[in-house]
Amino acid sequence: MKKKTPNKLKILNDPIYGFIQIPNSLIFDIIEHPYFQRLRRITQMGFSNLVYPGANHTRFHHAIGCMHLMQKAIRVLRFKQVAISKEEENALCIAILLHDIGHGAFSHALEHSIVSEISHEEISLKFMKKLNEEFEGKLTLAIEIFEGKNARKFLCQLISSQLDIDRLDYLKRDSFYTGVTEGNISSDRLIAMMNVKNDELVIEKKGIYSVEKFLIARRLMYWQVYLHKTGLVAENMLVNVLKRAKELAENGVELFASSALRYFLYHQIDASNFTEETLEMFSKLDDYDVLSAIKEWANHNDKILSLLAKMIVDRSLLRIEIQKDPFNDVYLEKKQQKATKKLGISKEETRFFVFTQQIRNQAYNLKKPVLILNKKGKLKDIAKASDQLNLQALTKPVIKHFICYPK
Amino acid sequence: MKKKTPNKLKILNDPIYGFIQIPNSLIFDIIEHPYFQRLRRITQMGFSNLVYPGANHTRFHHAIGCMHLMQKAIRVLRFKQVAISKEEENALCIAILLHDIGHGAFSHALEHSIVSEISHEEISLKFMKKLNEEFEGKLTLAIEIFEGKNARKFLCQLISSQLDIDRLDYLKRDSFYTGVTEGNISSDRLIAMMNVKNDELVIEKKGIYSVEKFLIARRLMYWQVYLHKTGLVAENMLVNVLKRAKELAENGVELFASSALRYFLYHQIDASNFTEETLEMFSKLDDYDVLSAIKEWANHNDKILSLLAKMIVDRSLLRIEIQKDPFNDVYLEKKQQKATKKLGISKEETRFFVFTQQIRNQAYNLKKPVLILNKKGKLKDIAKASDQLNLQALTKPVIKHFICYPK
Amino acid sequence: MKKKTPNKLKILNDPIYGFIQIPNSLIFDIIEHPYFQRLRRITQMGFSNLVYPGANHTRFHHAIGCMHLMQKAIRVLRFKQVAISKEEENALCIAILLHDIGHGAFSHALEHSIVSEISHEEISLKFMKKLNEEFEGKLTLAIEIFEGKNARKFLCQLISSQLDIDRLDYLKRDSFYTGVTEGNISSDRLIAMMNVKNDELVIEKKGIYSVEKFLIARRLMYWQVYLHKTGLVAENMLVNVLKRAKELAENGVELFASSALRYFLYHQIDASNFTEETLEMFSKLDDYDVLSAIKEWANHNDKILSLLAKMIVDRSLLRIEIQKDPFNDVYLEKKQQKATKKLGISKEETRFFVFTQQIRNQAYNLKKPVLILNKKGKLKDIAKASDQLNLQALTKPVIKHFICYPK
Amino acid sequence: MKKKTPNKLKILNDPIYGFIQIPNSLIFDIIEHPYFQRLRRITQMGFSNLVYPGANHTRFHHAIGCMHLMQKAIRVLRFKQVAISKEEENALCIAILLHDIGHGAFSHALEHSIVSEISHEEISLKFMKKLNEEFEGKLTLAIEIFEGKNARKFLCQLISSQLDIDRLDYLKRDSFYTGVTEGNISSDRLIAMMNVKNDELVIEKKGIYSVEKFLIARRLMYWQVYLHKTGLVAENMLVNVLKRAKELAENGVELFASSALRYFLYHQIDASNFTEETLEMFSKLDDYDVLSAIKEWANHNDKILSLLAKMIVDRSLLRIEIQKDPFNDVYLEKKQQKATKKLGISKEETRFFVFTQQIRNQAYNLKKPVLILNKKGKLKDIAKASDQLNLQALTKPVIKHFICYPK
Repeated sequence: MKKKTPNKLKILNDPIYGFIQIPNSLIFDIIEHPYFQRLRRITQMGFSNLVYPGANHTRFHHAIGCMHLMQKAIRVLRFKQVAISKEEENALCIAILLHDIGHGAFSHALEHSIVSEISHEEISLKFMKKLNEEFEGKLTLAIEIFEGKNARKFLCQLISSQLDIDRLDYLKRDSFYTGVTEGNISSDRLIAMMNVKNDELVIEKKGIYSVEKFLIARRLMYWQVYLHKTGLVAENMLVNVLKRAKELAENGVELFASSALRYFLYHQIDASNFTEETLEMFSKLDDYDVLSAIKEWANHNDKILSLLAKMIVDRSLLRIEIQKDPFNDVYLEKKQQKATKKLGISKEETRFFVFTQQIRNQAYNLKKPVLILNKKGKLKDIAKASDQLNLQALTKPVIKHFICYPK
Repeated sequence: MKKKTPNKLKILNDPIYGFIQIPNSLIFDIIEHPYFQRLRRITQMGFSNLVYPGANHTRFHHAIGCMHLMQKAIRVLRFKQVAISKEEENALCIAILLHDIGHGAFSHALEHSIVSEISHEEISLKFMKKLNEEFEGKLTLAIEIFEGKNARKFLCQLISSQLDIDRLDYLKRDSFYTGVTEGNISSDRLIAMMNVKNDELVIEKKGIYSVEKFLIARRLMYWQVYLHKTGLVAENMLVNVLKRAKELAENGVELFASSALRYFLYHQIDASNFTEETLEMFSKLDDYDVLSAIKEWANHNDKILSLLAKMIVDRSLLRIEIQKDPFNDVYLEKKQQKATKKLGISKEETRFFVFTQQIRNQAYNLKKPVLILNKKGKLKDIAKASDQLNLQALTKPVIKHFICYPK
Repeated sequence: MKKKTPNKLKILNDPIYGFIQIPNSLIFDIIEHPYFQRLRRITQMGFSNLVYPGANHTRFHHAIGCMHLMQKAIRVLRFKQVAISKEEENALCIAILLHDIGHGAFSHALEHSIVSEISHEEISLKFMKKLNEEFEGKLTLAIEIFEGKNARKFLCQLISSQLDIDRLDYLKRDSFYTGVTEGNISSDRLIAMMNVKNDELVIEKKGIYSVEKFLIARRLMYWQVYLHKTGLVAENMLVNVLKRAKELAENGVELFASSALRYFLYHQIDASNFTEETLEMFSKLDDYDVLSAIKEWANHNDKILSLLAKMIVDRSLLRIEIQKDPFNDVYLEKKQQKATKKLGISKEETRFFVFTQQIRNQAYNLKKPVLILNKKGKLKDIAKASDQLNLQALTKPVIKHFICYPK
Repeated sequence: MKKKTPNKLKILNDPIYGFIQIPNSLIFDIIEHPYFQRLRRITQMGFSNLVYPGANHTRFHHAIGCMHLMQKAIRVLRFKQVAISKEEENALCIAILLHDIGHGAFSHALEHSIVSEISHEEISLKFMKKLNEEFEGKLTLAIEIFEGKNARKFLCQLISSQLDIDRLDYLKRDSFYTGVTEGNISSDRLIAMMNVKNDELVIEKKGIYSVEKFLIARRLMYWQVYLHKTGLVAENMLVNVLKRAKELAENGVELFASSALRYFLYHQIDASNFTEETLEMFSKLDDYDVLSAIKEWANHNDKILSLLAKMIVDRSLLRIEIQKDPFNDVYLEKKQQKATKKLGISKEETRFFVFTQQIRNQAYNLKKPVLILNKKGKLKDIAKASDQLNLQALTKPVIKHFICYPK
């Protein structure tokens, strides 16, 4: 591993937080590692930039931002007399820095087309274990916390819970870069209200309105941004173009692709055969492999592949309709028939251009409650502590259905 | 009236909106009028600056900000083919500029101690009528709209409704100056979503989450800022010190006071005897009269008056407790007894130092619904249009009780 | 002194910095002291709010902001291995908190009309010494640093130098509240670039452009904001109205005034007779005494006094012209003659309405250089270190002249 | 061309300006064109994101932002009675939207390695002419203005001058996304100060400090951001890796590349043979082609190519030194010798890893002066109008030299 002089760049500019400090050289070296540098080439919000042109921020930047907020949270908790050792501090910073390192290209979109039946969390864990070898065991505690296995529950909850540091950064960051100011949350205030009780991460009572607003802002971001219809179409078309490419690959058709992308197109990878070689290949794969291939495929002689690819590249997307109820078969069939005529493809092939799907979001999950600490030291689920706003209503998942078809 | 050359300053800097343009010389002259200039000396948030040190913005600034947003709203509605004449535009700007001109010193706090049984809206109307005389009838349409008497209902709703321009400015402004970023609303987006249907002001469907967030933000501002306990104590002590001063005045005790303040201390003014002279005196009264008198009263030989005054000036306030249920008489009496001993006053006199009161807020008022316009042109109350968030719950007023007593 | 429980409010919202922490209970108690609370009633920018309606922030808020930046600076310097003891940290926070406590009402405007030949720094020192008695010697080191007598020069420079914490806060704050975004400086970055060399406060080389930009921003703020012509007229009229009041007081004319204001109107106070009683009276005097008196004086039967007062209250100010060269006597006399006719006053009395004056600003003071530290550890005056921008030019004071006269 | 319903999305969110409106369907259609959509895949700041992780904004977003500011500028000028016809308005918007459409991948970096002796302005013009054909002559006036051939000089100056709309957006935007807040300029104020005199674009006198600050901010951005040493190394390594690839291509070596990239690697394109086919190929080439190829080349068996590629991908860059004077040959040779040993390459081959170059920036260009309009209607070059700041000093180009070599 390359050696760094200790006085190397330790401060990063961040449009949101001002300056971000890299606390020590171990963390500096992790950031410098090619596995982590790869996150520079993966956008946080995938194709949302087709709707929100400012949303080009990367997973790299998000991870760095999380580390910054984690340092703040640790400072707040220590100020409130919660003991956190130097080792735990380091482990928390590393765990949050690496929590998304297993994300594939284009974030969530490709999670089930490039590989199957293996989640990005599992892949993150594989990366961490590999790094732990390279760094001679210095990540062991971080991994324990990431896996939720540490006895001090709040350490794990800072990494993963309904009000974890990950969410505090990504909601703020995504709101900032999209320009959807209404999704903005006061991460600072939420962190200032954190405390620990019975080893659980809790929020002090005067932070109750802030938590409510956080839940509402998150819900707004889901429906207005993450599940924005143009983004939805684009992401589904992305999945479909890769699905088609894999079909062609299976049939031995030659496709333009970088070696990393080629590896995943021409092999069926799942949890059972995800070897070290796979991990190495995965670490080479990012948005650039995928999008440059798609651009090239726009000229492929497979009609389906080239049509989908060209539509994506030129942002000339399928039409989409969203509604509360499922679309009926008659409507679907009508759209399929139109598509066969318009595109000159078989009915079977319309599945790439005409499809329905459901989307869902649950604004609040009762099973992992946000706990409110009142002045007498008692804990209450926020869904019960809130004096009026019916948060219980937010626990019911909202489900919607969409259909896509050619214009 | 003083004459202004037409090329006089027409652009104001605003930390929130950047630049605010004064659209024409009539409005410029209204702004220059001493009645309006007085608003420079009335803070928007009264004693909230005792909690939020940045909250020193004035009613003047708020009124100017409203005028700016009104111009935006008019531009948006015209873009959507809603006809708004030049006269109506002018009237809307004037009406919103003057909607609060009848506010007394320290905003709401003194509404019922300086004068009685006359609301600030009634006084605003008196000011507008007086100005209308001076400006030779040019405010007639503005007054009609302000009074809610114009046939085109949306014009009136822009001035007063659950989503009026007043709220769009004050929530944004108060959130900005207090630094309570969570109260921030996207006035821009809410205005961009406005439309008119059947002469009603409505919000387009894709603005539904923004309206929800607006309601939640407003509720947060109420409980976290407007009804913040320190602010509550200070405001109630302010009311009490003036009540005591009035009592003393009635008994012929001499008090330091500006002539305007003296007028209201030594006369009982209500709607029935609010003459032109009263209006003139009212127009001279602002925060400076009140606070400089209180500072002086800190040395008065009436013990109650001087005690209250000194506590306010030094920000050494009464203690306050807040709870959902009313405080019982036993507790109240205990506090009264302590106070008599501690302050050396009679039991009767403890009413200035020991008191309970209720506060309430209703986040959403079903009677004046915010109407959502869907794509098919149908209108729906947002409380029904929202897919999940139980807005109905927000219609129930929340009531809390507080008690104040000496530390 | 009133006692505070240790868990009292320790965090303040600030629209600029987010949250400001009060580091310990000594500092909390100083902030709670009536001397310091008085700063809540003194605006930072005097009558600049007549031009920039958002500029209503107070000296209280500025002082608190300074304390926040001081904590940041200490953290940065310690990170760079500069030893700063706990006592020094505390002293720095107290010194910066109190550096302006001797400011009179309306900030600079009244420095030479209420009292004479005693600067606000001298009065600040008197306040500090008085507080030091009350706090049993705990302010001794802070006073030493404030007086520039500490051996570690950089401690004094953090309080007073060309790049001191005072400036870093007030430029940022004034720019923020006026909405003159171009005056905004990156206090964060400037602090991040601070270091100590030979006991001097220095700036690291890569901060050179930031310092340049700071100097340019400050210069812009002077000419565009602090010396804005409307503000200039208003401040000079304020000085004149008080001058007139003092003249009348000397002649035994009765004037409406709070007891604190009365004290300074009816006595001639300078450094020689500034007793403890004077200090106590001074501590009672703020913007509210002055402005409420002026409002009352608008009806006084002294024509000069009432004319000036009314013009201020209604913001119907004198006309002002600014130019590079002094105004000649002929022009001045012409304006005086017009004024005698227009206002019906004697020529001698026109001095209150027709006057010229010079204003000056020096953007960079060579005598207290900002030192740049290069990588080899050498120091250089920024005026020489800057590779191109002719900072030397900024050392020449710019002088302008203005004349005021009735419209 | 694809047809759009008139009520299609006309508002875009922008983190900087809030909302951006697309004024009409012609402009909407231009934005939808694949030529323009390509700008979504070209970052504005090339490899600056290796230093400033937030700087991932695209040329697409910048162009849209320019259009927004242009609309503002037109509104301001019309308000000041400058006649601008509907056609001119449209032409200005189109010209500024397309002013950078000829930029190649990675912005400036590749201007001289992908093609030679043809500037991006010339290519922009080619794109505009092609679009003008497709849009049946509707871009003719825009092209005339872009070429600087319109008789109304200020129209051309809005597109290209020392204070053009391009700069007003990119400085603001780059400052925003890098988080270098000191580079922030007040585009709003600069636009508010614009006027036209004798057909020249001028700035009103009270905007003089804003222009000065603009020049200083721009200078700061150059030295702190655009010419940041890490960015410089990365960009030069990018140029070198493409240079090497072209050499290999000339020698018939097979390289992984998209068809668009292949076209430019295996052909020598300059102004003389830049055909319509070339333009079409150019329109397919963006950051994705280049970076995905470089990633693949990291495994090529040409040592030089793979070394350079790997260093770029892993951000394990050459070391760089910057100084005022040129580096002498002895030093260069020493570095070359070390490199031959360290990398095991020939001396001739060290040119890819050891090289010196000069960088220069001129903060103010006297030949295209920014003209200041005083109240008497006279014009003055700002370098002379500024009362003190020696802007003349800014006209001297600053030249620096750097050397790069392996660590």
